[in-house]
Amino acid sequence: MTRVGIVGGTGYTGVELLRLLLGHPGVEPVVITSRSEAGRLVADLFPNLRGHLDLSFSQPDMEQLQGCDLVFFATPNGTAMKMVPELLAAGTRVIDLAADFRIKDVAVWEQWYGMKHACPELLDQAVYGLPEMNREAVQGAQLVANPGCYPTAVTLGFLPLIEQGVVARRGLIADCKSGVSGAGRGASVPMLMGEAGESFKAYAVPGHRHLPEIRQNLAVAAREPVELTFVPHLLPMIRGIHATLYARAGRELDLQQLFEQHYADERFVDVLPAGSHPETRSVRSVNDCRIAIHQPQGGDTVVVLSVIDNLVKGAAGQAVQNMNLMLGLEEQMGLSAVALLP
Amino acid sequence: MTRVGIVGGTGYTGVELLRLLLGHPGVEPVVITSRSEAGRLVADLFPNLRGHLDLSFSQPDMEQLQGCDLVFFATPNGTAMKMVPELLAAGTRVIDLAADFRIKDVAVWEQWYGMKHACPELLDQAVYGLPEMNREAVQGAQLVANPGCYPTAVTLGFLPLIEQGVVARRGLIADCKSGVSGAGRGASVPMLMGEAGESFKAYAVPGHRHLPEIRQNLAVAAREPVELTFVPHLLPMIRGIHATLYARAGRELDLQQLFEQHYADERFVDVLPAGSHPETRSVRSVNDCRIAIHQPQGGDTVVVLSVIDNLVKGAAGQAVQNMNLMLGLEEQMGLSAVALLP
Amino acid sequence: MTRVGIVGGTGYTGVELLRLLLGHPGVEPVVITSRSEAGRLVADLFPNLRGHLDLSFSQPDMEQLQGCDLVFFATPNGTAMKMVPELLAAGTRVIDLAADFRIKDVAVWEQWYGMKHACPELLDQAVYGLPEMNREAVQGAQLVANPGCYPTAVTLGFLPLIEQGVVARRGLIADCKSGVSGAGRGASVPMLMGEAGESFKAYAVPGHRHLPEIRQNLAVAAREPVELTFVPHLLPMIRGIHATLYARAGRELDLQQLFEQHYADERFVDVLPAGSHPETRSVRSVNDCRIAIHQPQGGDTVVVLSVIDNLVKGAAGQAVQNMNLMLGLEEQMGLSAVALLP
Amino acid sequence: MTRVGIVGGTGYTGVELLRLLLGHPGVEPVVITSRSEAGRLVADLFPNLRGHLDLSFSQPDMEQLQGCDLVFFATPNGTAMKMVPELLAAGTRVIDLAADFRIKDVAVWEQWYGMKHACPELLDQAVYGLPEMNREAVQGAQLVANPGCYPTAVTLGFLPLIEQGVVARRGLIADCKSGVSGAGRGASVPMLMGEAGESFKAYAVPGHRHLPEIRQNLAVAAREPVELTFVPHLLPMIRGIHATLYARAGRELDLQQLFEQHYADERFVDVLPAGSHPETRSVRSVNDCRIAIHQPQGGDTVVVLSVIDNLVKGAAGQAVQNMNLMLGLEEQMGLSAVALLP
Repeated sequence: MTRVGIVGGTGYTGVELLRLLLGHPGVEPVVITSRSEAGRLVADLFPNLRGHLDLSFSQPDMEQLQGCDLVFFATPNGTAMKMVPELLAAGTRVIDLAADFRIKDVAVWEQWYGMKHACPELLDQAVYGLPEMNREAVQGAQLVANPGCYPTAVTLGFLPLIEQGVVARRGLIADCKSGVSGAGRGASVPMLMGEAGESFKAYAVPGHRHLPEIRQNLAVAAREPVELTFVPHLLPMIRGIHATLYARAGRELDLQQLFEQHYADERFVDVLPAGSHPETRSVRSVNDCRIAIHQPQGGDTVVVLSVIDNLVKGAAGQAVQNMNLMLGLEEQMGLSAVALLP
Repeated sequence: MTRVGIVGGTGYTGVELLRLLLGHPGVEPVVITSRSEAGRLVADLFPNLRGHLDLSFSQPDMEQLQGCDLVFFATPNGTAMKMVPELLAAGTRVIDLAADFRIKDVAVWEQWYGMKHACPELLDQAVYGLPEMNREAVQGAQLVANPGCYPTAVTLGFLPLIEQGVVARRGLIADCKSGVSGAGRGASVPMLMGEAGESFKAYAVPGHRHLPEIRQNLAVAAREPVELTFVPHLLPMIRGIHATLYARAGRELDLQQLFEQHYADERFVDVLPAGSHPETRSVRSVNDCRIAIHQPQGGDTVVVLSVIDNLVKGAAGQAVQNMNLMLGLEEQMGLSAVALLP
Repeated sequence: MTRVGIVGGTGYTGVELLRLLLGHPGVEPVVITSRSEAGRLVADLFPNLRGHLDLSFSQPDMEQLQGCDLVFFATPNGTAMKMVPELLAAGTRVIDLAADFRIKDVAVWEQWYGMKHACPELLDQAVYGLPEMNREAVQGAQLVANPGCYPTAVTLGFLPLIEQGVVARRGLIADCKSGVSGAGRGASVPMLMGEAGESFKAYAVPGHRHLPEIRQNLAVAAREPVELTFVPHLLPMIRGIHATLYARAGRELDLQQLFEQHYADERFVDVLPAGSHPETRSVRSVNDCRIAIHQPQGGDTVVVLSVIDNLVKGAAGQAVQNMNLMLGLEEQMGLSAVALLP
Repeated sequence: MTRVGIVGGTGYTGVELLRLLLGHPGVEPVVITSRSEAGRLVADLFPNLRGHLDLSFSQPDMEQLQGCDLVFFATPNGTAMKMVPELLAAGTRVIDLAADFRIKDVAVWEQWYGMKHACPELLDQAVYGLPEMNREAVQGAQLVANPGCYPTAVTLGFLPLIEQGVVARRGLIADCKSGVSGAGRGASVPMLMGEAGESFKAYAVPGHRHLPEIRQNLAVAAREPVELTFVPHLLPMIRGIHATLYARAGRELDLQQLFEQHYADERFVDVLPAGSHPETRSVRSVNDCRIAIHQPQGGDTVVVLSVIDNLVKGAAGQAVQNMNLMLGLEEQMGLSAVALLP
């Protein structure tokens, strides 16, 4: 059994990671840290874990973490970067589910995240953990930056189009909608059910932190910068992201076939039959990304619909997928359950 | 008191129309027809009306309807066109909340609605009842085609941009999201709470009936055809439409000012301060359309956010607004309540 | 125009009170205080008020409040009692929507609310503002204690049975369910949509602050103490309370007739026809309490179903009803709208 | 691999059964029948099964079903009883998830279900499949009547109290709340999201089909008839049942200890620590029943809170548990996942 630790396990990403790890045959969570909840049974905070996990939250302890084969950070942005160098030095592999190592350009990162980076020297070494782009690099990585939820849905939806250059690299639009769990488990007025329920709105239209991350991914695929507008919205539901992507077709091609071929060997990307409309609930609780491609009325505008569970393929599930790759396990180990519907 | 009738009052549009008319000081609903519910107290079907309305549903009776000053059709598409000629002939004015008279080109209508039009000769005479475009015509109209819900939100959001020619007329995108009440009160599996709850999806991406209606409106504003992609989505909530509109800026202009000036005299269109993100709940139960304009990172892409209550400004409220105009009443009579929040 | 003030208008009760007062023809809100939001436009905090109200929150100022004819307290428990004596001394009438003056026995109050009462000498003078029990006293009151939401639904449901002595006064059960808005607008983890959505639970079974209030009401009606079990539950929705009440029939009587007669003259209590099941949505946004009475299979157990909108008849609407009585206005002035459905 | 069949797999019970069976290491679904959907891929109807199941719905075929080791009926009431005799005769074991074999008294069954029973001679042989009451009988059963959702939650909550005779057997109250999935996947107006969303109501207070089933269970436990009032309510959410149970304490006893001891060996009944309030979401997607016991203010009224997922322990999960017992497999095989939260 591989011993894994979780730093900062009191949020939705933390509990989802625990749910998945407890169903994983090859690893065992041995330490879960939380400064605020140290000493409390994890199952007290997350009632779904009662009967499945006897661990209590503990104060972060470097020695104990170094005793793990792999450590997940499910902390707020800016925490992992302070602890990761020491862990790597001790030979412990790390997957950061926050944003500390996602952006290669430290100036861009510091601008969007509003803080000084603590270990910019690790940014080169960190592998961006989207296996569908970077599988080989992840397999050999010591440090994986687990992608953001929006960037996962958007990148997977645009990837075949951008890589093949079949759409214009200007005027890309990602109109994205996320359930409230994407905002985390911190107390806040806008996420109260009385505020977020039975309503819908866009937010952060002037600029959202996932924008530079998406741009970076697409620029890698395009081998040049792309121009993208990203508009996130808040859905009155708990789990799920739906990305509706728009691009201008640059040349004629069977896009359905393009997508099917591109993802033919990907276990977690499911290209739906032509004419489909994926529902977020069809991937609730599982690590799949489902994609449909449309070209309405045969016009120039390509529309891609891409759905994930923001807490699974958008966070904890993708982290487990990366862990499997890093540990040389079967990529889908612990990730083969059927989605919960209804 | 002006006497009004409603044909087909068993859907959500019907009950909302009754709610608004019962709070209106100048009119009185005197007949509500329904073939399926004839003889049943209206308040039995719609418990919110109990204590406010003593009428029962009656079989449609032309004589009785002709006795009304104005008749609303809240019927499925294809019903009004069979009865309207006779009503107009008798001098009764008509507002059709369905789609029978919305499209000027009968061939286009017949293609999208899949039936033969019963009175194409009336299409010219019918006034498209978006007061913010056609106020004067509505005032003198005998027959008003009340706009669709999506077309209302989208048209009001694009109108200043298109009319002024400040955006490209190609590549327009309307990414729209609607609550389930937009699908009506008919029993159907996809609208069950077990199906539509806690999930989100696009639908009708290849083509939706509101597309030709929106295109027609924008072409009128542009004085030439426009190229538009329209993607509707279903929200897991009851009321509200959010349209997220994208266009390419053609020339520099203070868009905030453009919108504020364009709608300066419009009581039901509220241009929010720069940087705003309207919530659908802020217009729940009221006839307002709220709009915010963004140009993220100063790029070429203009983003307009437009919200309405699909049952009010998107249906029954707009019908009352049109009625007020047709009857020479104050435009906002009966439409000045405060939205219900939370 | 009567000038009214609101102390503490940043919660759901505050915004609902403003919504109702803005639709009331006889009064005008002239001051709304908030220590935390002083200086901010009220319509900034509550977007539904935009275009309807130009007031800003102000620091509480005794002189300004004394200039009002009537002041509402929509503050947390324990605030009103510190300011009310001074207001009453100046001749300003007061309606407290919090709990400071609801319990006549100061020892009971101090035990359940965990603080010392600041003006126990006013408890006798304060009128418990349930008009259906205390209409005359409210009409002459200087200080009204507006009832709690659960106590309103439960008391109105039990009242005819208890007053007439047709049920046992032991073993009464009130199984109550409330939407999340009952918990207020304060940031808290349990009220996040991610926590309260798609789930249901009881809470405070060992004891809830509304228990002594309900007991007090029923004891008044019974002219002796009653024995009651009260179990509140949290519903995954925003507005509405449903009380399911159980009692043992003590003697044979036509209970339907009993209720209909008891509430025959009450405008805001609607006894439904025999066999009915009231829905919370049928009273959403309005001041009605709807009640149905059952005696399943002709057994000994009487079941009363009672629904209200917790923010209207359970808070702000009842406060307006009390205000109308205190000011000698028509009791239903400003409270006659139709409920919002769907 | 044990070969199992499902008759009538187009409802929520059917898809949930498939989800659980696909994660079960010891069985394989080989036939799924549906008259209405015959020929269609099951994964077309239930998108969560895409990639996990290649079966299509087939016309019910007795020979094919007899080729299964065990057949589940997930059909409407009244279907299984017409096919079961032939299956049993062929040696195929049967679990009926509908109500055909739940009630021992055929007259009672025919009264509540409004039809003639097709094989009353099998009622004696049928085992009521609540393992916590009838484990041994289930192990040897050829025909299991899988319990109703409400009866499961209510019976498990009352069982220790009734069996030990520590509460009065008169005046029992079961105030139950269910998510909409309990009403099935058939198109109906009351289950539309526009009707059932954001609202709450009781239903069937005069009498619900689960009442005689609960009474039968409790009478078995009490060894005499009990008197019970059962009031079901509809929750605005998808999954979950919460039963709030009331009884009069007959004699002093440590109820917490009673429950803990009673269920000490039960893997799927979890007695929470004293003072707890179980949430329905804590058992979402899993086969657990969680129970808390209260005696508020030390009074005579005992309050038991009992939660299950209506589609799992209330239907498909319990059916799998019964199947495991019938097949001699480990009782919790395929049923050990962690609940999905949030």
